[in-house]
Amino acid sequence: MGTFHYPNGKKIVTALKTKKKSSSVPKNEISYSNRGMSLEDDLNQSNQYYLLTGKAVIHKKPTPVQIVNVEYPKRSAAVIKEAYFKLASTTDYNGVYKGRYIDFEAKETKNKTSFPLKNFHEHQINHMQQIIDHGGISFVILRFSADDDIYLFDCRYLIQYWNEQKEGRKSIPKGEISEKGHSITIGYQPRLNYLDIVDRVYFSPSL
Amino acid sequence: MGTFHYPNGKKIVTALKTKKKSSSVPKNEISYSNRGMSLEDDLNQSNQYYLLTGKAVIHKKPTPVQIVNVEYPKRSAAVIKEAYFKLASTTDYNGVYKGRYIDFEAKETKNKTSFPLKNFHEHQINHMQQIIDHGGISFVILRFSADDDIYLFDCRYLIQYWNEQKEGRKSIPKGEISEKGHSITIGYQPRLNYLDIVDRVYFSPSL
Repeated sequence: MGTFHYPNGKKIVTALKTKKKSSSVPKNEISYSNRGMSLEDDLNQSNQYYLLTGKAVIHKKPTPVQIVNVEYPKRSAAVIKEAYFKLASTTDYNGVYKGRYIDFEAKETKNKTSFPLKNFHEHQINHMQQIIDHGGISFVILRFSADDDIYLFDCRYLIQYWNEQKEGRKSIPKGEISEKGHSITIGYQPRLNYLDIVDRVYFSPSL
Repeated sequence: MGTFHYPNGKKIVTALKTKKKSSSVPKNEISYSNRGMSLEDDLNQSNQYYLLTGKAVIHKKPTPVQIVNVEYPKRSAAVIKEAYFKLASTTDYNGVYKGRYIDFEAKETKNKTSFPLKNFHEHQINHMQQIIDHGGISFVILRFSADDDIYLFDCRYLIQYWNEQKEGRKSIPKGEISEKGHSITIGYQPRLNYLDIVDRVYFSPSL
């Protein structure tokens, strides 16, 4: 894994915000535009809800960091003084649901009409294929932030679009995502009840 | 998750070593004492082997770090200037094997006669119980470094010993581990063929 450069620091600002905000979110507002919440916040809250209610064990993996220099002050915690972000070799979320292995990545775009494939990288796509090959459940959760539309999209389709990039198309049209994917509505507890969709798509007896 | 203090910096030294060493390890020496390899090195190599040979998709999670301060120098990678280790809320390794969810933690002790339970913490034990409850495969890989003895030990037993701590015993006798667990021999490719044991323990038709 190489060092990864977040050019504008966006990711980190989000990560730090998450910590402070969790207790001060107004509980009656459930649209993204009013809440200023990120997709990651909502998935973490939903996974926490699933964990506490005994529905599933799904966690976000820690951000991969290459640690270069650590100081060990006497009588206080070790301080990492130099470290770099690394490109993840897998997806961000995984766990177990009804005995099955579940694995997914969550991404947002400001684009209104299509989802740019540059949100993913080759390693992740390969990982998704490997999960499918080993009988795991592999999908992405895609959010169009302008309209607050969120979809669960099976990785088989994503991989297909990824492979078709050489033919020129660098994004997935929103119409295809809404047609082949499944809309996730924003609720209160859990905020994103994506396991409801997982039940229908991956555990339905008709499939 | 709280900040975690590694008092002697051991963990980090190991993590950095891993990166540099992977290509310079002598290939014909397979005992720990000669190799100076860690259990983590060997598991990473074994998981890499399983991945490349299409046997399983199992990865070590990144070390959880709380990032406090990041600098964004022009024309070069973002540098984390202040961060702290966090206590992991789950186990270190997970993935999918033959469609099943696999989850484990790996620990070493210098103790010759028993494995101290202080190598685990409450959050991890709870996580292991949750994995079992949801139909996943949950075990620990325990290494007695003095004698190079490595065992796969089902988490049901570990949880039992954990709960019995209040009766006074703070460690698991090695005899119990060798009796209820399964010895993993050190080989070349993969170095620790623990999936061979997983096959026998969790996929055997007689169980």
